[in-house]
Amino acid sequence: MLPPPGDRPDPRPASPARLLGTSAGRAVLVAAVLAVTLVGAGGLALAGGTTARPAERTVEAAPEARSAERPAGCVTPDRRLDLYAVELPKDPVTGQVRLGYGLTPQTASYPGPTMEMIEGECLAITLYNQVTASTLEQLRTDPAHPVGVSLHVHGVKYTQTSDGTVHSASFVPPGGSRTYIWYAKPRTATSPGTAGYWWYHDHVVGGPHGTQGLRSGLFGGLVVRRQGDSRPDRTYVTAFGDRQTINLRRSAEADTCDPVNPQPGPTCLVAKIGERVEFIVIGLGDDMHTFHVHGHSWADTRTGVVEGSNRALVDSIPVIDNKTLGPGDTFGVQIVAGDSVGPGHWMLHCHMQFHSDLGMSTTLHVLDENGQMPPHAGGHSPTPPAQGAPAPAGAHTNHR
Amino acid sequence: MLPPPGDRPDPRPASPARLLGTSAGRAVLVAAVLAVTLVGAGGLALAGGTTARPAERTVEAAPEARSAERPAGCVTPDRRLDLYAVELPKDPVTGQVRLGYGLTPQTASYPGPTMEMIEGECLAITLYNQVTASTLEQLRTDPAHPVGVSLHVHGVKYTQTSDGTVHSASFVPPGGSRTYIWYAKPRTATSPGTAGYWWYHDHVVGGPHGTQGLRSGLFGGLVVRRQGDSRPDRTYVTAFGDRQTINLRRSAEADTCDPVNPQPGPTCLVAKIGERVEFIVIGLGDDMHTFHVHGHSWADTRTGVVEGSNRALVDSIPVIDNKTLGPGDTFGVQIVAGDSVGPGHWMLHCHMQFHSDLGMSTTLHVLDENGQMPPHAGGHSPTPPAQGAPAPAGAHTNHR
Amino acid sequence: MLPPPGDRPDPRPASPARLLGTSAGRAVLVAAVLAVTLVGAGGLALAGGTTARPAERTVEAAPEARSAERPAGCVTPDRRLDLYAVELPKDPVTGQVRLGYGLTPQTASYPGPTMEMIEGECLAITLYNQVTASTLEQLRTDPAHPVGVSLHVHGVKYTQTSDGTVHSASFVPPGGSRTYIWYAKPRTATSPGTAGYWWYHDHVVGGPHGTQGLRSGLFGGLVVRRQGDSRPDRTYVTAFGDRQTINLRRSAEADTCDPVNPQPGPTCLVAKIGERVEFIVIGLGDDMHTFHVHGHSWADTRTGVVEGSNRALVDSIPVIDNKTLGPGDTFGVQIVAGDSVGPGHWMLHCHMQFHSDLGMSTTLHVLDENGQMPPHAGGHSPTPPAQGAPAPAGAHTNHR
Repeated sequence: MLPPPGDRPDPRPASPARLLGTSAGRAVLVAAVLAVTLVGAGGLALAGGTTARPAERTVEAAPEARSAERPAGCVTPDRRLDLYAVELPKDPVTGQVRLGYGLTPQTASYPGPTMEMIEGECLAITLYNQVTASTLEQLRTDPAHPVGVSLHVHGVKYTQTSDGTVHSASFVPPGGSRTYIWYAKPRTATSPGTAGYWWYHDHVVGGPHGTQGLRSGLFGGLVVRRQGDSRPDRTYVTAFGDRQTINLRRSAEADTCDPVNPQPGPTCLVAKIGERVEFIVIGLGDDMHTFHVHGHSWADTRTGVVEGSNRALVDSIPVIDNKTLGPGDTFGVQIVAGDSVGPGHWMLHCHMQFHSDLGMSTTLHVLDENGQMPPHAGGHSPTPPAQGAPAPAGAHTNHR
Repeated sequence: MLPPPGDRPDPRPASPARLLGTSAGRAVLVAAVLAVTLVGAGGLALAGGTTARPAERTVEAAPEARSAERPAGCVTPDRRLDLYAVELPKDPVTGQVRLGYGLTPQTASYPGPTMEMIEGECLAITLYNQVTASTLEQLRTDPAHPVGVSLHVHGVKYTQTSDGTVHSASFVPPGGSRTYIWYAKPRTATSPGTAGYWWYHDHVVGGPHGTQGLRSGLFGGLVVRRQGDSRPDRTYVTAFGDRQTINLRRSAEADTCDPVNPQPGPTCLVAKIGERVEFIVIGLGDDMHTFHVHGHSWADTRTGVVEGSNRALVDSIPVIDNKTLGPGDTFGVQIVAGDSVGPGHWMLHCHMQFHSDLGMSTTLHVLDENGQMPPHAGGHSPTPPAQGAPAPAGAHTNHR
Repeated sequence: MLPPPGDRPDPRPASPARLLGTSAGRAVLVAAVLAVTLVGAGGLALAGGTTARPAERTVEAAPEARSAERPAGCVTPDRRLDLYAVELPKDPVTGQVRLGYGLTPQTASYPGPTMEMIEGECLAITLYNQVTASTLEQLRTDPAHPVGVSLHVHGVKYTQTSDGTVHSASFVPPGGSRTYIWYAKPRTATSPGTAGYWWYHDHVVGGPHGTQGLRSGLFGGLVVRRQGDSRPDRTYVTAFGDRQTINLRRSAEADTCDPVNPQPGPTCLVAKIGERVEFIVIGLGDDMHTFHVHGHSWADTRTGVVEGSNRALVDSIPVIDNKTLGPGDTFGVQIVAGDSVGPGHWMLHCHMQFHSDLGMSTTLHVLDENGQMPPHAGGHSPTPPAQGAPAPAGAHTNHR
């Protein structure tokens, strides 16, 4: 069911950053309880291929970069991307405006495409604002607030020109474009580096903190790797937002896996036993949440794993299976799917009971070595989990 | 007042896990502001004794274990326990249903008995559901939700058969029993291990997340130790739940110590100066809380202590005296009672002001070297703390 | 604009603790969105000078210290300070009572003066309660609750006589005084030490947890340094409280910098590029918050920096730019202003969207090497940030 490991691209440890999530970009009507973006083998293959980079352009061909200052250490961008902010179909239940970022206008989604960088890399992203002034005006309450969309990023380095804020005038009016430069500064003796699990988001829509942009879906995950970091086989983004926005829905759409033939996707978390699965966990909105996975745990470190020869210090690091996060917090963990616990339907949910009861819960489906879910995996009921009902046709398709 | 150190059992660092909390199991009407379970010298002695293990059975005599799959690494359970889920007397103030786990039906309590394991051990626990179908039906709102009780655990390894969830059919209907297998996987070069402070809880009562089971009291603490870990002299469980459940009560019952002759118990936290006191801190429910102790602090590590020869790294570890936790979070700390600060009535409370003002506060009573509270310890008022009123007769007795 | 580095005092790494914040003490009408106390070069110079220590007295001249017990390790106080609790002008908007601590009655402020100690030091602070009984009675709801003000501290060691609580009778009635002794116990093989970012606060006003004292402003920051710790060039305190108290104001007063000639102050966070800026971050009240700074990040360690030769362990430490904190939590970070990102107006805000939208946001103004804000720093709009309106005359002056 899953692509065989041989289909996965080379890990390319020293290569420049790659943009992930292309396949996930088609997930528009996510309406997920946990907003999950799949960035798995397929996404990597597509983004990393030599012929399928519609959004990547050569460095030389980007004159607009001259308008952006570079953070110290970034001599010239190593790579360029285009990013589009577009309006998606309104939420079918609430009628709320939905916005998304995409590598192309047609593939915009929320969360947006997951970005990947490696320490040392400098990335130029040109944001095209295709959201109409009318929509953006509708999302603000203060008529003096400017109309635009922006790109603000956590963790990596950027100058005021790439801050994505109103006061720095680093946003994009409707119909315009602007190039943002991110620098994944490496760790040195005096710098802690920028490797980590981060996110990017609008900081302008609706007000000076971009609250309506975030609420509408203008955010995505970013992972910055360090030379030597373990590469995951699959990457999923799980975003914990407010009941008003993305996450707290009472529907089957938290998990749209086909129980017979599960295909990895934004709302279908699947892995084969033994695969290294990476979660990028994002908190946003107004509320606290927790990230809990059944049967799996991780070290509370930068990546969820820990190595080291200093036994006493290694032994001092907490191992956890539940982690609290507030808005703006991001972290990532790498776990080995089914390690010691076998295949099965492993719940992944917020442990705030009223959140999980309202639907902030999904499942990590761990398949056996043959890519199959054992009929009675671990002795569980042969019926699929309650959330596992097939998604309505087209739920993963951009109808825009 | 406290048993002399000589009465404590051997630390037995390499022994298999032992179940703690037997003496605490009698505390049914806890109604505590901080739900506190004492697992001190007495509890250890009882559980570890050779003649007083009513709930432990030999490995060979447990055919029901054949129905449970074992997580990888657990060849066969090293030890077996029985656990009973029973209905306790209703909350005298709110009339709310109270449920508890116990090593015997007569000693069920909430929180339930504190479990202790050591890395490498595999434990089989047979849960007997003695809660009536009528009570369980009363706690659900969805008539399609099954009626049962389960055992879900954090941190250690288990297969889907021991997940304790509805979708895996690993729960126990009224009158039934089921064996759950927990494996405390050791730390290796590729595994972070399972040593830590965890909890176990129902995941079925009322709904697929066991919210009503948790709310009623079906949870308890679990500590998994690593070879070489320091052993505490006393272990207390402090659970921070919602105002609706356990913790936010405005009564004297947060601290039922007899001020003249304090006896350690679930709502009487006592230690002699110099003793190593361990707290297992559990967050549950819907809200955030903080764990704060006056006069004492700890390193923010797996155990609250830190050792190591790498000075720079050791110096990098934060030392704290207040730690935020969300539902599902657990941590543990070991502190030396009265270290540098002497005997006295040291407050232990949630630092959210409206929580502490509503009663989420208790006291760690640190006695002097003679096991006495100095009449004017540290110059304090000779009157006992406000919360220190004697408990109503029988408050610690299971009236069921 | 900023004092040249040459005006800064010697770092004096081995000197005893010094009290900071004298200049900040004049900020009474802070009314800040983020309650910020500047403790910069000026404050250090004043507190560290040999002729300008009005609040420091010789050890020999303090007979009242005899009434206070000393924590183990404190042979005799190394230094003495006076601290005054006074009533400040009522909040001009809400009419709420405002209280503050000050090194002199005239310089009381909220937050109070920032304290600095070094591990090994023992400090005696005599608190004079100049708040009237009438005001204190007004702040309590329970007529049986005593009337007084106290000093409770986190992180350092103290006996019950310095606990600042009701039950220990360690508070100060109106018109009275009391000496509290704090001991910054050093790190040893068996003690984690007390170096860290802490706070002190009242624990008596209004009720046994001092909720009304905290709400009114009776708190301040404390940093305990370890021998060898990096010294910052500037220290700011940012406190995150409830909407009812300090932080959530919708006004220009979150940032009162003069955009032409910014002067560091409690509500004007300024640094020159390359300066090491230290934030002491305090959570108080009832709510959760997050501390987020644009363009800057730090290691999640005791000081925000990390050193060490064990590469694997150093690489395991998370680097973050957003940190959640609950009431009672404190942490500190040292960042290099503008490192890699250049000068500019860098936002500092709570990432809970409804908090930042209500005004829980300010700006770290990073000047260039000449102490100037480039006219178009980083390409930003030449207009000052929205919050940058000049403060009303006298906003930094104690009108009392």
